[in-house]
Amino acid sequence: MYTHSVVNPYYKKINRIHSKYTSSEYVEQILKGNITILSKAISLVESKKNEHQKIAQEIIEKCLPYAGNSIRIGITGVPGAGKSTSINALGMDLVHKKNKKLAVLAVDPSSDRSKGSILGDKIRMEEISRETNVFIRPSSSSGSLGGIANKTREEIILCEASGFDTILIETVGVGQSEIAVHSMVDFFLLIQIAGAGDELQGIKRGIMEMADSIVINKADGDNIEKANLAAVQYKNAISLFPASPSKWIPQVMTYSGHYKIGITEIWNTIYKYIDFTKTNGYFDHKRKTQDKYWMYENINEQLKNHFYQSDFIKKELAIKEKQVLDSKISPFKASKQILDLFFRKTPLSKLTH
Amino acid sequence: MYTHSVVNPYYKKINRIHSKYTSSEYVEQILKGNITILSKAISLVESKKNEHQKIAQEIIEKCLPYAGNSIRIGITGVPGAGKSTSINALGMDLVHKKNKKLAVLAVDPSSDRSKGSILGDKIRMEEISRETNVFIRPSSSSGSLGGIANKTREEIILCEASGFDTILIETVGVGQSEIAVHSMVDFFLLIQIAGAGDELQGIKRGIMEMADSIVINKADGDNIEKANLAAVQYKNAISLFPASPSKWIPQVMTYSGHYKIGITEIWNTIYKYIDFTKTNGYFDHKRKTQDKYWMYENINEQLKNHFYQSDFIKKELAIKEKQVLDSKISPFKASKQILDLFFRKTPLSKLTH
Repeated sequence: MYTHSVVNPYYKKINRIHSKYTSSEYVEQILKGNITILSKAISLVESKKNEHQKIAQEIIEKCLPYAGNSIRIGITGVPGAGKSTSINALGMDLVHKKNKKLAVLAVDPSSDRSKGSILGDKIRMEEISRETNVFIRPSSSSGSLGGIANKTREEIILCEASGFDTILIETVGVGQSEIAVHSMVDFFLLIQIAGAGDELQGIKRGIMEMADSIVINKADGDNIEKANLAAVQYKNAISLFPASPSKWIPQVMTYSGHYKIGITEIWNTIYKYIDFTKTNGYFDHKRKTQDKYWMYENINEQLKNHFYQSDFIKKELAIKEKQVLDSKISPFKASKQILDLFFRKTPLSKLTH
Repeated sequence: MYTHSVVNPYYKKINRIHSKYTSSEYVEQILKGNITILSKAISLVESKKNEHQKIAQEIIEKCLPYAGNSIRIGITGVPGAGKSTSINALGMDLVHKKNKKLAVLAVDPSSDRSKGSILGDKIRMEEISRETNVFIRPSSSSGSLGGIANKTREEIILCEASGFDTILIETVGVGQSEIAVHSMVDFFLLIQIAGAGDELQGIKRGIMEMADSIVINKADGDNIEKANLAAVQYKNAISLFPASPSKWIPQVMTYSGHYKIGITEIWNTIYKYIDFTKTNGYFDHKRKTQDKYWMYENINEQLKNHFYQSDFIKKELAIKEKQVLDSKISPFKASKQILDLFFRKTPLSKLTH
């Protein structure tokens, strides 16, 4: 029993609740800002069980009319840049000086995150984790990046319906997940540190071009001069980039997450961006474009789910898988046969309204 | 006309050939080792046109019985590690000392690769590009990583059928694409350089654990000592990793791609690994596991293709897309409606043999 609850502490609770509450009851509590129920609804979203997915989809659909009224911020940086410490500092500033409600979500498709590093994150975010106006949800999803990203999008909706007016989405800073997160946020914040190796430039450039602001952490003590120098270099680099469709020029700033220096300035920049893009129409345009993107992502994910959850397909897959492992058939032929079978039975060309 | 041929230099040729050759004629020439036809067949594989895809699939199916008899090697490293120079040195050694035939393919899902860097690669691989027993195919694919990786798998088959006994697959070294390439090769070679920043460790570790050999480039001149030190550090790091299912202990070596020092030793290690895993059965086991993996990847890719290529779906998507952009419907609802429509018309539960 102990092991079980370590693996998934929500497991038992979900089952208990699922038999207890309807989707409408979930939504009622979420709209009231009930964090416990919000958290459990998110567990349903992340669950792989069909009955959980079904109720999760109902909850999301009912929450949708109440969603959308937040600022969505993506935050990234290489391991060691100080993301957790920065989120803690940004969160404390936000709830105390700006009187906002903050939800922190994470997109982390890498499965090999150690328990140590998760514990470390917890320690670094200890202050905000005790705040009543802050909701932190570490990523407990697994699966394809597309699947994880879809779920994160759905979690944003639940958080927004629950009254969180600021959503922070953290990524690990390795490339692919940044693209996914960029497509669900209004503002993309890139945390850098001075003296990162040159060999990373190839990776950084793509991410740098997505950034609405590059902030250089650890600008404290002996490190201030190095951080300022890095800021100049990033400003120069940015000036060479093609103009952004938002017409916004990415801001470069130095700060210290640990000593909470320059944090308010980061928020001011974010609000300036939001004002700027709401005025010139880009904010709305971007959200619509993202909606279109997510329609397709959703279709792809659901198409796969429908296919693999069919008992007929499950049976066929088991047969073909064995044939492939026994080298009786090539993987190409196996996939072709199973899809031919599927599409012969369901000829798309015959579909009409 | 000029712009067109810049965008896709193969375009006109494909169309001309397509009307000229049948898939059997393609295969006949591929089996004879006709590089021009092999190259054109690969263009068909990479083409997004339906008629090209159709003939490409026929060619692959017919080539399958002649494929599989090569050593497939994945090669990766961060930008600046010297991948192209190393591939050039490895290739020259292979064709002249080992009398082998080498095909070099690339998996690069990043679209923002500059023309300058492709030109640079060409210059660094100039020697092997003039060898008759070397076939180099820079990645000209675009699309999802899954799609690109699927195509690379198909290209391996064509190259093998064409008599290439060694296949080198290069990746850019950022994370996701390494996992895809790892799942299609027998041996995974990681190129490192001494003094790469600590901040990369989080990224490296996952890739390091996949490596069957870590080779430290630029071990020449003043840099030898640093490279040797790095080798010791990597050996220490590897000794802490869990044992590989292959029972093979990853080898760490230093070399110089530019001065062609230590190149034969890299090949000797690769052959030692192949012998070792063929003897203990892991080689065969791994290929079968990969086949299973690729069966599923193929299914996912084809499922999507079938869906999106349907005229019925195309029409529906256009309608829903407009509704989403006009904020008349949420992306979730739009995707749900289109899939409900699709699956109501084609109830999976009713499918039988």
